[in-house]
Amino acid sequence: MTGEGAGRPGSRGGRRSGDSGTREAIGDAARAQFAERGYHGATIRAIAAAAQVDPALVHHFYGTKEALFAAAMRLPIVPSEVLTAALAHDKWDAGDGSGAGLGEHMVRTALGLWESAEIGESFIGLLRSAVTSEQAAIMLREFIADSILSTVARAAGLAERCSSAEAEFRSAMVATQMLGLALTRLVLALPPVASASIDDLAAVVGPSIDRYLTGEIQMPSRDS
Amino acid sequence: MTGEGAGRPGSRGGRRSGDSGTREAIGDAARAQFAERGYHGATIRAIAAAAQVDPALVHHFYGTKEALFAAAMRLPIVPSEVLTAALAHDKWDAGDGSGAGLGEHMVRTALGLWESAEIGESFIGLLRSAVTSEQAAIMLREFIADSILSTVARAAGLAERCSSAEAEFRSAMVATQMLGLALTRLVLALPPVASASIDDLAAVVGPSIDRYLTGEIQMPSRDS
Repeated sequence: MTGEGAGRPGSRGGRRSGDSGTREAIGDAARAQFAERGYHGATIRAIAAAAQVDPALVHHFYGTKEALFAAAMRLPIVPSEVLTAALAHDKWDAGDGSGAGLGEHMVRTALGLWESAEIGESFIGLLRSAVTSEQAAIMLREFIADSILSTVARAAGLAERCSSAEAEFRSAMVATQMLGLALTRLVLALPPVASASIDDLAAVVGPSIDRYLTGEIQMPSRDS
Repeated sequence: MTGEGAGRPGSRGGRRSGDSGTREAIGDAARAQFAERGYHGATIRAIAAAAQVDPALVHHFYGTKEALFAAAMRLPIVPSEVLTAALAHDKWDAGDGSGAGLGEHMVRTALGLWESAEIGESFIGLLRSAVTSEQAAIMLREFIADSILSTVARAAGLAERCSSAEAEFRSAMVATQMLGLALTRLVLALPPVASASIDDLAAVVGPSIDRYLTGEIQMPSRDS
């Protein structure tokens, strides 16, 4: 996505030829630093150094570190757009109308994205940030609820099946399993989960996702 | 667990009356710092300050920061002992021999421990550390595999049902769900998961756990 020149060492002149090139170079550096050091560990100074620009320029383009982080995380894709396309009905429905197949397809899609060169680094950085910074946790929580889970609920057709509160609970339960899979496979690298293929994990985890989305589960009592 | 004097400000004399009191005070401070700041953020200096001792004394008692971290995490309970007692067969078996009930009981037990005053802080600190430090991730991974998952496998009677590789895979799948529940509820605080009662979550997540432990699932192919 970055211009060819921006990725090469010593291409300072090329990178600075336009604002958008510089902005992009800073975004790339930020993504790498956040993924490597987490939210607290990554500094504007180190990001600027990695992008070969003055720290003041980072502030000029992005404002605060929080704003830079958010922009850096959003850069490679717009997750809800990618998810909407990936979870389109014709990609997973076996044709019997049961909805079986969405869970397995979702696990395969998510792991594929998380382990891709394009997304993986940002995703791990986001997880790291959320675990170490209350501010980033709030950011990720809101992002997950607003963009990811509403897309998941839409893919499963929950609006036509249940109340919005139920749809919200069901898709949040999906998050408990998917984020745990990410944590265990990508961060902890627990051997049997880390070494299994994406297809094998999709086959095992898919039915759990389907059950949360469309199975018989007990809704939490409102006054609990 | 700490002597009464160790918890009070200005009780320096009392705390230093014995090595074990000082050691305990340092452990308490370490636990709080790791939980609050994660592994990288917590410094020996800050821990020593919180415990009102010289940093050299922290090194004297615990050696490295890694060693202090491990000791601090182990202090309040020995998790495998607590788990073994909590998951004892008579605590969850409905009597029909199906093994149904273990998953729900396990979720209730784990959430109860994670949200207790005694364990909660250490547990969150451990998660934070594992996500920000490769070293801590290795430590947590090994700890989970050696102590927690083998205890879970034993509680489910997996040794009598399947190969050790299968038992390892099944209990690792349990980890994907349980750790994701912890991450989503305790760290991200995603609203519907954070506000649900422990009983409500146990009812919804329990069957997923039971399926991973004893249900029909496809084992990963060895050459994947």
